[in-house]
Amino acid sequence: MTVEQFPIGVLISGRGSNLQAILDATERGEVAARVVAVISNREDAFGLERARCRGIPAVTFPRRDYATRQEQQAAMAAELQRRGVRLVVLAGFDQVVGTALLRSFPNAIINVHPSLLPAFGGGLHAQREALDHGVKVSGCTVHFVSQDVDAGPIILQAAVEVRDDDTEESLSNRILAREHRLLPRAVDLIARNRVRVEGRRVLIAPNQD
Amino acid sequence: MTVEQFPIGVLISGRGSNLQAILDATERGEVAARVVAVISNREDAFGLERARCRGIPAVTFPRRDYATRQEQQAAMAAELQRRGVRLVVLAGFDQVVGTALLRSFPNAIINVHPSLLPAFGGGLHAQREALDHGVKVSGCTVHFVSQDVDAGPIILQAAVEVRDDDTEESLSNRILAREHRLLPRAVDLIARNRVRVEGRRVLIAPNQD
Repeated sequence: MTVEQFPIGVLISGRGSNLQAILDATERGEVAARVVAVISNREDAFGLERARCRGIPAVTFPRRDYATRQEQQAAMAAELQRRGVRLVVLAGFDQVVGTALLRSFPNAIINVHPSLLPAFGGGLHAQREALDHGVKVSGCTVHFVSQDVDAGPIILQAAVEVRDDDTEESLSNRILAREHRLLPRAVDLIARNRVRVEGRRVLIAPNQD
Repeated sequence: MTVEQFPIGVLISGRGSNLQAILDATERGEVAARVVAVISNREDAFGLERARCRGIPAVTFPRRDYATRQEQQAAMAAELQRRGVRLVVLAGFDQVVGTALLRSFPNAIINVHPSLLPAFGGGLHAQREALDHGVKVSGCTVHFVSQDVDAGPIILQAAVEVRDDDTEESLSNRILAREHRLLPRAVDLIARNRVRVEGRRVLIAPNQD
Protein backbone atom coordinates (compact mmCIF):
# COMPACT_ATOMS: atom_id res chain seq x y z
CA MET A 1 0.00 0.00 0.00
CA THR A 2 1.32 3.44 -0.85
CA VAL A 3 -0.27 6.54 0.57
CA GLU A 4 1.79 9.15 -1.20
CA GLN A 5 -0.87 11.77 -0.95
CA PHE A 6 -1.19 11.78 2.86
CA PRO A 7 -1.42 15.55 3.40
CA ILE A 8 0.57 17.13 6.22
CA GLY A 9 0.99 20.68 7.47
CA VAL A 10 4.19 21.97 9.04
CA LEU A 11 4.28 24.73 11.68
CA ILE A 12 7.47 26.73 12.00
CA SER A 13 8.82 29.83 13.71
CA GLY A 14 12.38 30.01 12.44
CA ARG A 15 14.81 28.71 9.90
CA GLY A 16 12.86 25.50 9.37
CA SER A 17 15.69 23.02 8.96
CA ASN A 18 13.41 20.19 10.04
CA LEU A 19 10.88 21.35 7.44
CA GLN A 20 13.67 21.13 4.88
CA ALA A 21 14.52 17.61 6.07
CA ILE A 22 10.88 16.56 5.55
CA LEU A 23 10.74 18.18 2.10
CA ASP A 24 13.99 16.50 1.07
CA ALA A 25 12.85 13.12 2.38
CA THR A 26 9.52 13.37 0.55
CA GLU A 27 11.34 14.27 -2.68
CA ARG A 28 13.57 11.22 -2.26
CA GLY A 29 10.42 9.13 -1.89
CA GLU A 30 11.27 8.15 1.70
CA VAL A 31 8.12 9.61 3.21
CA ALA A 32 4.64 8.59 2.09
CA ALA A 33 3.29 12.07 2.67
CA ARG A 34 3.08 15.46 1.02
CA VAL A 35 3.52 18.87 2.66
CA VAL A 36 0.42 20.83 1.60
CA ALA A 37 0.81 23.83 3.93
CA VAL A 38 3.51 25.58 5.89
CA ILE A 39 2.36 27.91 8.60
CA SER A 40 4.31 30.35 10.71
CA ASN A 41 3.54 32.67 13.60
CA ARG A 42 6.48 34.84 12.53
CA GLU A 43 6.70 36.68 9.21
CA ASP A 44 10.50 36.53 9.15
CA ALA A 45 10.71 32.75 9.49
CA PHE A 46 13.16 31.63 6.80
CA GLY A 47 11.34 28.32 6.51
CA LEU A 48 8.56 30.17 4.66
CA GLU A 49 11.00 30.75 1.80
CA ARG A 50 11.92 27.08 1.71
CA ALA A 51 8.26 26.22 1.21
CA ARG A 52 7.59 28.89 -1.42
CA CYS A 53 10.64 27.74 -3.40
CA ARG A 54 8.86 24.44 -3.86
CA GLY A 55 5.48 25.94 -4.62
CA ILE A 56 4.00 24.97 -1.26
CA PRO A 57 1.53 27.44 0.25
CA ALA A 58 3.20 29.28 3.12
CA VAL A 59 0.98 31.39 5.32
CA THR A 60 1.83 33.67 8.23
CA PHE A 61 -0.45 34.31 11.17
CA PRO A 62 1.20 37.13 13.14
CA ARG A 63 0.30 37.37 16.79
CA ARG A 64 -0.62 41.07 16.47
CA ASP A 65 -3.47 40.25 14.10
CA TYR A 66 -5.36 38.39 16.82
CA ALA A 67 -6.71 39.37 20.22
CA THR A 68 -5.48 36.14 21.82
CA ARG A 69 -3.05 33.35 21.07
CA GLN A 70 -6.05 31.04 21.13
CA GLU A 71 -7.69 32.99 18.28
CA GLN A 72 -4.41 33.04 16.41
CA GLN A 73 -4.10 29.26 16.64
CA ALA A 74 -7.78 28.79 15.78
CA ALA A 75 -7.08 30.63 12.51
CA MET A 76 -4.09 28.34 11.88
CA ALA A 77 -6.26 25.30 12.56
CA ALA A 78 -8.91 26.52 10.13
CA GLU A 79 -6.31 27.03 7.41
CA LEU A 80 -4.85 23.56 8.00
CA GLN A 81 -8.31 21.97 7.87
CA ARG A 82 -9.18 23.90 4.74
CA ARG A 83 -6.17 22.31 3.04
CA GLY A 84 -7.16 18.82 4.14
CA VAL A 85 -4.21 18.32 6.49
CA ARG A 86 -4.33 15.03 8.38
CA LEU A 87 -1.14 15.45 10.39
CA VAL A 88 0.34 18.63 11.85
CA VAL A 89 4.11 18.62 12.35
CA LEU A 90 5.71 21.14 14.69
CA ALA A 91 9.17 21.89 13.37
CA GLY A 92 10.67 24.55 15.57
CA PHE A 93 7.30 26.12 16.33
CA ASP A 94 7.84 28.30 19.40
CA GLN A 95 4.30 28.59 20.77
CA VAL A 96 2.66 26.29 23.27
CA VAL A 97 -0.09 24.47 21.39
CA GLY A 98 -3.50 25.29 22.84
CA THR A 99 -6.87 23.65 22.71
CA ALA A 100 -7.89 25.25 19.39
CA LEU A 101 -5.25 23.24 17.53
CA LEU A 102 -5.46 20.19 19.78
CA ARG A 103 -9.22 19.83 19.33
CA SER A 104 -9.02 20.36 15.57
CA PHE A 105 -6.33 17.68 15.22
CA PRO A 106 -6.86 15.11 17.97
CA ASN A 107 -3.86 12.77 18.24
CA ALA A 108 -2.63 14.23 14.98
CA ILE A 109 -0.05 16.79 16.06
CA ILE A 110 3.56 15.75 16.53
CA ASN A 111 6.64 17.59 17.76
CA VAL A 112 10.37 16.96 17.81
CA HIS A 113 12.25 17.82 21.01
CA PRO A 114 16.05 17.98 21.37
CA SER A 115 16.42 15.60 24.33
CA LEU A 116 15.52 12.09 25.37
CA LEU A 117 12.23 12.89 27.08
CA PRO A 118 11.25 12.82 29.91
CA ALA A 119 14.72 14.25 30.59
CA PHE A 120 15.08 17.98 29.92
CA GLY A 121 11.53 18.62 28.80
CA GLY A 122 9.42 21.68 29.40
CA GLY A 123 11.97 24.31 28.44
CA LEU A 124 13.55 25.91 25.41
CA HIS A 125 17.13 25.05 26.33
CA ALA A 126 17.20 21.25 26.54
CA GLN A 127 20.72 21.00 25.13
CA ARG A 128 22.11 23.54 27.63
CA GLU A 129 20.33 21.72 30.48
CA ALA A 130 21.76 18.39 29.34
CA LEU A 131 25.28 19.83 29.31
CA ASP A 132 24.83 21.47 32.71
CA HIS A 133 23.55 18.21 34.16
CA GLY A 134 26.61 16.43 32.83
CA VAL A 135 24.86 13.65 30.92
CA LYS A 136 26.95 11.52 28.55
CA VAL A 137 24.02 10.56 26.33
CA SER A 138 21.26 12.84 25.09
CA GLY A 139 19.22 12.68 21.92
CA CYS A 140 15.92 13.64 20.41
CA THR A 141 12.29 12.63 20.73
CA VAL A 142 9.35 12.73 18.32
CA HIS A 143 6.13 12.67 20.32
CA PHE A 144 2.44 13.37 20.01
CA VAL A 145 1.50 16.76 21.35
CA SER A 146 -0.84 16.85 24.32
CA GLN A 147 -1.91 19.57 26.70
CA ASP A 148 1.09 18.90 28.91
CA VAL A 149 4.18 20.34 27.23
CA ASP A 150 6.69 17.70 26.04
CA ALA A 151 4.72 14.95 27.78
CA GLY A 152 2.65 13.30 25.05
CA PRO A 153 3.16 9.69 23.91
CA ILE A 154 6.62 9.07 22.44
CA ILE A 155 6.77 7.82 18.85
CA LEU A 156 10.51 7.62 18.20
CA GLN A 157 13.69 8.47 20.06
CA ALA A 158 17.33 8.45 19.06
CA ALA A 159 20.37 8.66 21.31
CA VAL A 160 23.21 11.08 20.65
CA GLU A 161 26.60 11.03 22.34
CA VAL A 162 27.58 14.02 24.50
CA ARG A 163 31.30 14.75 24.32
CA ASP A 164 33.45 16.25 27.04
CA ASP A 165 34.36 19.22 24.85
CA ASP A 166 30.84 19.90 23.65
CA THR A 167 29.43 23.40 23.67
CA GLU A 168 25.71 24.12 23.53
CA GLU A 169 26.18 24.77 19.81
CA SER A 170 28.12 21.61 18.97
CA LEU A 171 25.70 19.41 20.91
CA SER A 172 22.68 21.17 19.39
CA ASN A 173 24.06 20.61 15.89
CA ARG A 174 24.70 16.91 16.53
CA ILE A 175 21.18 16.43 17.90
CA LEU A 176 19.63 18.46 15.06
CA ALA A 177 21.31 16.26 12.46
CA ARG A 178 19.67 13.28 14.12
CA GLU A 179 16.28 15.05 14.25
CA HIS A 180 16.50 15.49 10.49
CA ARG A 181 16.33 11.72 10.07
CA LEU A 182 13.97 10.94 12.94
CA LEU A 183 11.16 13.36 12.15
CA PRO A 184 10.62 12.31 8.48
CA ARG A 185 10.67 8.68 9.65
CA ALA A 186 7.91 9.40 12.18
CA VAL A 187 5.85 11.19 9.53
CA ASP A 188 6.22 8.23 7.21
CA LEU A 189 5.13 5.74 9.89
CA ILE A 190 2.01 7.79 10.65
CA ALA A 191 1.22 8.31 6.95
CA ARG A 192 1.41 4.54 6.45
CA ASN A 193 -0.94 4.01 9.40
CA ARG A 194 1.67 1.99 11.24
CA VAL A 195 1.44 3.94 14.52
CA ARG A 196 -0.94 2.89 17.28
CA VAL A 197 -1.24 4.64 20.65
CA GLU A 198 -2.08 2.56 23.73
CA GLY A 199 -2.17 4.76 26.79
CA ARG A 200 1.29 6.25 27.04
CA ARG A 201 2.89 3.65 24.78
CA VAL A 202 3.17 3.98 21.03
CA LEU A 203 3.37 0.74 19.08
CA ILE A 204 4.81 0.58 15.58
CA ALA A 205 3.28 -2.05 13.31
CA PRO A 206 5.70 -4.05 11.14
CA ASN A 207 6.18 -2.96 7.56
CA GLN A 208 3.55 -4.73 5.40
CA ASP A 209 5.19 -3.89 2.08
CA MET B 1 51.39 3.39 33.43
CA THR B 2 49.70 0.36 34.89
CA VAL B 3 48.01 0.50 38.26
CA GLU B 4 46.95 -3.08 38.57
CA GLN B 5 46.88 -3.00 42.32
CA PHE B 6 44.32 -0.20 42.66
CA PRO B 7 42.19 -1.74 45.44
CA ILE B 8 38.42 -1.59 45.19
CA GLY B 9 35.58 -2.80 47.39
CA VAL B 10 32.23 -3.95 46.04
CA LEU B 11 28.95 -3.64 47.95
CA ILE B 12 26.15 -6.02 47.03
CA SER B 13 22.76 -7.14 48.28
CA GLY B 14 21.82 -9.85 45.80
CA ARG B 15 23.08 -12.08 43.05
CA GLY B 16 25.98 -9.80 42.23
CA SER B 17 26.06 -10.10 38.45
CA ASN B 18 27.80 -6.75 38.18
CA LEU B 19 30.36 -7.96 40.71
CA GLN B 20 30.91 -10.96 38.46
CA ALA B 21 31.35 -8.65 35.48
CA ILE B 22 34.03 -6.70 37.34
CA LEU B 23 35.80 -9.88 38.44
CA ASP B 24 35.74 -11.28 34.90
CA ALA B 25 37.01 -8.00 33.43
CA THR B 26 39.85 -7.81 35.96
CA GLU B 27 40.84 -11.40 35.17
CA ARG B 28 40.91 -10.57 31.47
CA GLY B 29 43.21 -7.68 32.29
CA GLU B 30 40.70 -5.07 31.11
CA VAL B 31 40.47 -3.27 34.44
CA ALA B 32 43.51 -1.85 36.22
CA ALA B 33 42.07 -2.65 39.63
CA ARG B 34 41.72 -5.50 42.06
CA VAL B 35 38.66 -6.40 44.16
CA VAL B 36 40.00 -6.71 47.72
CA ALA B 37 36.69 -6.87 49.58
CA VAL B 38 33.08 -7.76 48.90
CA ILE B 39 30.56 -6.56 51.44
CA SER B 40 26.88 -7.33 51.77
CA ASN B 41 24.08 -6.20 54.03
CA ARG B 42 22.36 -9.53 53.38
CA GLU B 43 23.72 -12.92 54.38
CA ASP B 44 21.95 -14.71 51.54
CA ALA B 45 23.43 -12.55 48.79
CA PHE B 46 24.67 -14.99 46.17
CA GLY B 47 27.41 -12.56 45.18
CA LEU B 48 29.23 -13.49 48.41
CA GLU B 49 29.79 -16.96 46.95
CA ARG B 50 31.17 -15.52 43.75
CA ALA B 51 33.76 -13.63 45.79
CA ARG B 52 34.68 -16.56 48.01
CA CYS B 53 35.16 -18.81 44.98
CA ARG B 54 37.96 -16.50 43.95
CA GLY B 55 39.48 -16.20 47.39
CA ILE B 56 38.25 -12.64 47.90
CA PRO B 57 37.22 -11.73 51.46
CA ALA B 58 33.42 -11.53 51.60
CA VAL B 59 31.93 -10.06 54.73
CA THR B 60 28.31 -9.67 55.78
CA PHE B 61 27.01 -6.86 57.97
CA PRO B 62 23.41 -7.80 58.79
CA ARG B 63 21.13 -4.97 59.72
CA ARG B 64 20.01 -6.69 62.93
CA ASP B 65 23.55 -6.55 64.35
CA TYR B 66 23.42 -2.75 64.50
CA ALA B 67 21.18 -0.26 66.27
CA THR B 68 20.97 1.99 63.22
CA ARG B 69 21.67 1.80 59.50
CA GLN B 70 24.23 4.51 60.07
CA GLU B 71 26.15 2.28 62.51
CA GLN B 72 25.84 -0.62 60.11
CA GLN B 73 27.34 1.40 57.29
CA ALA B 74 30.04 2.82 59.59
CA ALA B 75 31.13 -0.77 60.24
CA MET B 76 31.22 -1.42 56.49
CA ALA B 77 33.28 1.73 55.98
CA ALA B 78 35.75 0.65 58.66
CA GLU B 79 36.16 -2.75 57.03
CA LEU B 80 36.70 -1.19 53.61
CA GLN B 81 39.28 1.24 54.98
CA ARG B 82 41.04 -1.55 56.85
CA ARG B 83 41.53 -3.33 53.53
CA GLY B 84 42.92 -0.22 51.87
CA VAL B 85 40.01 0.25 49.47
CA ARG B 86 40.32 3.39 47.34
CA LEU B 87 37.08 3.04 45.40
CA VAL B 88 33.75 1.63 46.57
CA VAL B 89 31.52 0.17 43.87
CA LEU B 90 27.80 -0.31 44.53
CA ALA B 91 26.67 -3.30 42.51
CA GLY B 92 23.05 -3.93 43.34
CA PHE B 93 23.43 -2.61 46.88
CA ASP B 94 19.90 -1.91 48.09
CA GLN B 95 20.53 0.58 50.89
CA VAL B 96 20.66 4.35 50.56
CA VAL B 97 24.26 5.34 51.23
CA GLY B 98 24.51 7.54 54.31
CA THR B 99 27.09 9.95 55.60
CA ALA B 100 29.21 7.29 57.33
CA LEU B 101 30.21 5.80 53.99
CA LEU B 102 30.16 9.10 52.09
CA ARG B 103 32.54 10.79 54.54
CA SER B 104 34.89 7.80 54.64
CA PHE B 105 35.11 7.69 50.83
CA PRO B 106 34.62 11.24 49.54
CA ASN B 107 34.08 11.23 45.76
CA ALA B 108 35.11 7.59 45.77
CA ILE B 109 31.80 5.72 45.72
CA ILE B 110 30.17 4.86 42.40
CA ASN B 111 26.87 3.26 41.50
CA VAL B 112 25.28 1.84 38.38
CA HIS B 113 21.63 2.69 37.73
CA PRO B 114 19.41 1.02 35.10
CA SER B 115 18.24 4.16 33.29
CA LEU B 116 19.64 7.20 31.53
CA LEU B 117 19.65 9.54 34.50
CA PRO B 118 18.16 12.03 35.27
CA ALA B 119 15.24 10.06 33.77
CA PHE B 120 13.73 7.41 36.06
CA GLY B 121 15.97 8.02 39.04
CA GLY B 122 15.12 7.80 42.70
CA GLY B 123 13.28 4.51 42.65
CA LEU B 124 13.90 0.78 42.53
CA HIS B 125 11.86 0.16 39.37
CA ALA B 126 13.51 2.30 36.71
CA GLN B 127 12.92 -0.24 33.95
CA ARG B 128 9.20 -0.53 34.79
CA GLU B 129 8.90 3.26 34.90
CA ALA B 130 10.63 3.57 31.53
CA LEU B 131 8.21 1.07 29.98
CA ASP B 132 5.20 2.76 31.56
CA HIS B 133 6.35 6.13 30.25
CA GLY B 134 6.66 4.67 26.77
CA VAL B 135 10.26 5.69 26.04
CA LYS B 136 11.95 4.18 23.00
CA VAL B 137 15.47 4.57 24.38
CA SER B 138 16.62 3.84 27.89
CA GLY B 139 20.00 2.70 29.16
CA CYS B 140 22.26 2.75 32.18
CA THR B 141 24.32 5.25 34.09
CA VAL B 142 27.47 4.95 36.20
CA HIS B 143 27.67 7.92 38.55
CA PHE B 144 29.37 9.12 41.68
CA VAL B 145 27.23 8.67 44.76
CA SER B 146 26.21 11.82 46.60
CA GLN B 147 23.71 12.54 49.31
CA ASP B 148 20.96 12.97 46.77
CA VAL B 149 19.93 9.55 45.49
CA ASP B 150 20.81 8.94 41.81
CA ALA B 151 21.88 12.55 41.37
CA GLY B 152 25.68 12.55 41.65
CA PRO B 153 28.00 13.45 38.74
CA ILE B 154 27.63 11.09 35.77
CA ILE B 155 30.75 9.19 34.69
CA LEU B 156 29.47 7.04 31.83
CA GLN B 157 26.12 6.34 30.18
CA ALA B 158 25.04 3.92 27.51
CA ALA B 159 21.82 3.89 25.52
CA VAL B 160 19.71 0.75 25.14
CA GLU B 161 16.83 0.31 22.71
CA VAL B 162 13.34 -0.26 24.14
CA ARG B 163 11.27 -2.58 21.97
CA ASP B 164 7.52 -2.55 21.55
CA ASP B 165 7.19 -6.09 22.89
CA ASP B 166 9.49 -5.57 25.86
CA THR B 167 8.48 -6.75 29.29
CA GLU B 168 10.07 -5.44 32.46
CA GLU B 169 12.22 -8.57 32.46
CA SER B 170 13.38 -8.41 28.85
CA LEU B 171 14.26 -4.72 29.13
CA SER B 172 16.00 -5.26 32.47
CA ASN B 173 18.10 -8.04 30.98
CA ARG B 174 19.12 -5.95 27.98
CA ILE B 175 20.11 -3.03 30.22
CA LEU B 176 21.94 -5.33 32.66
CA ALA B 177 24.04 -6.77 29.85
CA ARG B 178 25.09 -3.23 29.01
CA GLU B 179 25.83 -2.45 32.69
CA HIS B 180 28.21 -5.41 32.71
CA ARG B 181 30.43 -3.60 30.21
CA LEU B 182 29.91 -0.04 31.46
CA LEU B 183 30.71 -0.54 35.15
CA PRO B 184 34.11 -2.25 34.68
CA ARG B 185 35.01 0.45 32.18
CA ALA B 186 34.23 3.17 34.75
CA VAL B 187 36.29 1.36 37.40
CA ASP B 188 39.20 1.16 34.99
CA LEU B 189 39.02 4.86 34.15
CA ILE B 190 39.04 5.80 37.84
CA ALA B 191 41.84 3.34 38.64
CA ARG B 192 43.92 4.93 35.88
CA ASN B 193 43.22 8.37 37.31
CA ARG B 194 41.58 9.47 34.08
CA VAL B 195 38.40 10.83 35.69
CA ARG B 196 38.09 14.46 36.78
CA VAL B 197 34.96 16.01 38.30
CA GLU B 198 34.18 19.66 37.57
CA GLY B 199 30.95 20.65 39.26
CA ARG B 200 28.34 18.35 37.79
CA ARG B 201 30.42 17.42 34.76
CA VAL B 202 32.82 14.50 34.70
CA LEU B 203 35.70 14.77 32.23
CA ILE B 204 37.58 11.73 30.97
CA ALA B 205 41.25 12.30 30.18
CA PRO B 206 42.56 10.69 26.97
CA ASN B 207 44.36 7.39 27.26
CA GLN B 208 48.07 8.08 27.86
CA ASP B 209 49.24 4.55 27.11
